[in-house]
Amino acid sequence: MASAPLDFYYDFSSPYSYLAAARIAALAEGADVRIAWKPFLLGPIFAAKGHATSPLVSDPDKNVHMWADVTRLAELYHLPPLRRPDPFPVNSLLAARVALHLNDACRPAFTRAVYRAEFAEGRDIADRETIYHLLAGLGHFFEEVIDEAERQENKDRLRAQTEAARAEGVFGAPTFIAADGALFWGNDRLEMALDHARRLARAA
Amino acid sequence: MASAPLDFYYDFSSPYSYLAAARIAALAEGADVRIAWKPFLLGPIFAAKGHATSPLVSDPDKNVHMWADVTRLAELYHLPPLRRPDPFPVNSLLAARVALHLNDACRPAFTRAVYRAEFAEGRDIADRETIYHLLAGLGHFFEEVIDEAERQENKDRLRAQTEAARAEGVFGAPTFIAADGALFWGNDRLEMALDHARRLARAA
Repeated sequence: MASAPLDFYYDFSSPYSYLAAARIAALAEGADVRIAWKPFLLGPIFAAKGHATSPLVSDPDKNVHMWADVTRLAELYHLPPLRRPDPFPVNSLLAARVALHLNDACRPAFTRAVYRAEFAEGRDIADRETIYHLLAGLGHFFEEVIDEAERQENKDRLRAQTEAARAEGVFGAPTFIAADGALFWGNDRLEMALDHARRLARAA
Repeated sequence: MASAPLDFYYDFSSPYSYLAAARIAALAEGADVRIAWKPFLLGPIFAAKGHATSPLVSDPDKNVHMWADVTRLAELYHLPPLRRPDPFPVNSLLAARVALHLNDACRPAFTRAVYRAEFAEGRDIADRETIYHLLAGLGHFFEEVIDEAERQENKDRLRAQTEAARAEGVFGAPTFIAADGALFWGNDRLEMALDHARRLARAA
């Protein structure tokens, strides 16, 4: 039986996407689900809805809760102690372009490295130097990777991936979408999304 | 050892509060946590933040996801099939006043009955008749209960409870607050809030 597909939409500025990215590979393997790692940008989706930024940022009470919550979850998942990026949210454009440009086999490790740099190591992922060092740490020693990621064709691919997310009803990150279009929002729904994808594949 | 206290803030218009109210008593008993059932109104808190309504209502994509999500969770929890109140959100003022007016021993059963009427039976909980029948079903056969709930003193109590919630940082429902002020937002965090309350009590 072929493994079940599941789209994993994530934005590099999203703390809950970090938590999901740290967990999804092991859980998907156990559930025999094949993850399509899909970096996208939440900014244009928020803007189209008339939000200046995420409600997690614009509501101070929600913001206080979010950091306490993400800190507790990082501990629960045995991740390194959470470090809050400052400023927040960071500009995730460059990281998203590079992640998209890498092939499917390399994207997950790069994605996890970016998130860890951002939320556990206090590094600035909007900085080209940081991205270069993260790539080098994964064996991509050519600065050309970044140049290629910033070519118009790749920029357009990221724009199209963001538009596809919006068209499927994505309004936040992380979001998981199964083959039947069922949409699951949030790190909290990762397990449920995997269950759904697996059941779909079995019923097929 | 005394059981650990945990405040449970809920709004009768909130579907996720319904899910938490259906689960909390059994889970709290298992965790030896004493729940303070605290009905309040989200409306004035949203208004103070400049939101016309809940983001679950104002964003159509979020709204579609919410109903799919609550429907799936109701099934997962073995609750009756979810029925979407129409209109939504309902006016939860009368139900909140009556819930607050009842004593601590009667409030949980009334709360669950209201939520079930609203989200599983398609009944209008803004209607005085509905509330009267729910009360009668629980053995409160006196229409005076509703009259008393609408006295100025009780109205003021509900206002004070809402203000207390806001002052503690409540921005959504359900919200759980432990004795040390730690705040947990959402039905998804019920188990974590209970764990926290229990650990606090053991450390004391």
